[in-house]
Amino acid sequence: MSVYNKLELLGIKLPAATPSVGAYVPVSQIGSTVYVAGHIAKRDGKPLVGALGAEFTTAEGKQAARDVALDLIGTLHGAIGDLNKVTRIAKIMVLVHSAPTFIEQHLVANGASELIGEIFGDAGAHARSAFGVAQLPFGSCVEIELIAEVTS
Amino acid sequence: MSVYNKLELLGIKLPAATPSVGAYVPVSQIGSTVYVAGHIAKRDGKPLVGALGAEFTTAEGKQAARDVALDLIGTLHGAIGDLNKVTRIAKIMVLVHSAPTFIEQHLVANGASELIGEIFGDAGAHARSAFGVAQLPFGSCVEIELIAEVTS
Amino acid sequence: MSVYNKLELLGIKLPAATPSVGAYVPVSQIGSTVYVAGHIAKRDGKPLVGALGAEFTTAEGKQAARDVALDLIGTLHGAIGDLNKVTRIAKIMVLVHSAPTFIEQHLVANGASELIGEIFGDAGAHARSAFGVAQLPFGSCVEIELIAEVTS
Repeated sequence: MSVYNKLELLGIKLPAATPSVGAYVPVSQIGSTVYVAGHIAKRDGKPLVGALGAEFTTAEGKQAARDVALDLIGTLHGAIGDLNKVTRIAKIMVLVHSAPTFIEQHLVANGASELIGEIFGDAGAHARSAFGVAQLPFGSCVEIELIAEVTS
Repeated sequence: MSVYNKLELLGIKLPAATPSVGAYVPVSQIGSTVYVAGHIAKRDGKPLVGALGAEFTTAEGKQAARDVALDLIGTLHGAIGDLNKVTRIAKIMVLVHSAPTFIEQHLVANGASELIGEIFGDAGAHARSAFGVAQLPFGSCVEIELIAEVTS
Repeated sequence: MSVYNKLELLGIKLPAATPSVGAYVPVSQIGSTVYVAGHIAKRDGKPLVGALGAEFTTAEGKQAARDVALDLIGTLHGAIGDLNKVTRIAKIMVLVHSAPTFIEQHLVANGASELIGEIFGDAGAHARSAFGVAQLPFGSCVEIELIAEVTS
């Protein structure tokens, strides 16, 4: 099934590509490997500010991670033109802005991982790292970067 | 010399592959590049909880990093079936759960780097980043991810 | 224009390759993908110690990131012998040693990104992640790692 049919079936509207906020580009490529820059959690176009274990619960963080993953896929669509070219989401790195006692970064990261699985199926079986960081740009609660394999 | 002969010579018993604890897979691959997901430090199968510079000394953290590296190699063995296919351990990322004043992340990381060198020799000459993080999943003291080159 | 002519035009002197300070190597390679190990900020050959939002301003951190990027390029030159072989700086990861309230990691990272753009032009259009970490090796304020594509 086409990724776009799958998105429609899931009732998911693909967001527009996220522009970079600095002297870099959202997507770069070496051969069939595509690097998507870190995207931060937003709500209504503004950074979703706060730390897990303080301003946000694990459930809220998981939803934020899911939203970031969708933004990453929107950016990937914008860069490669056709998400059906994605043969594998290879890896994500999930950075969770964490209060000192928060230790459920893996549960937050599942928000992103589950969405990727829903959309890409077998091609969405990815490795990942998830960990807690002291701060993120704009004070956002979650940042995720992604590596994918694409056909030319 | 076969990697397995080397392990025997070193008296190292390869652990079983570590299953993922979330909606991801332990290993993914793009061409000859293999991504092994972040593995956390454990003891007796349970997360080894605490921060470097607080609950753990640098020497204890270095041993934990060495143990994590062995777990990563066990997972890699489980995924590719034959560690002699590894032509290069290309990079590791070493996340050290750190008290605010702890600045010896590079010495902790050496625990992983030295084991990789002992086992893989020239093919184990890897780049790396090591840094201190606010927290890790389950409160673990060390997390490491790995990128390797393999022959098909 | 040759990268070296460009450096001369910009009045930039390429530093010597930075040796590793541990059981790893500064650069590794899989196919055309080159991984440059994390380099920390230094001044006069010594770690530049402190946190953004405490000991250093954003402007100082941005300059430190620019200096680290130049060190990375010096190391890359040492490893591949000719920077004109670089067809793409694909990605950088910028770790900013951050006080709890510091949220301008992206502005710090621009110091590295802008230098890469000045030196490599279109080939310097890279993806990146930037985030705040609890601590860095030797207490340094910034650490950056880099992935590049090179021709053989």
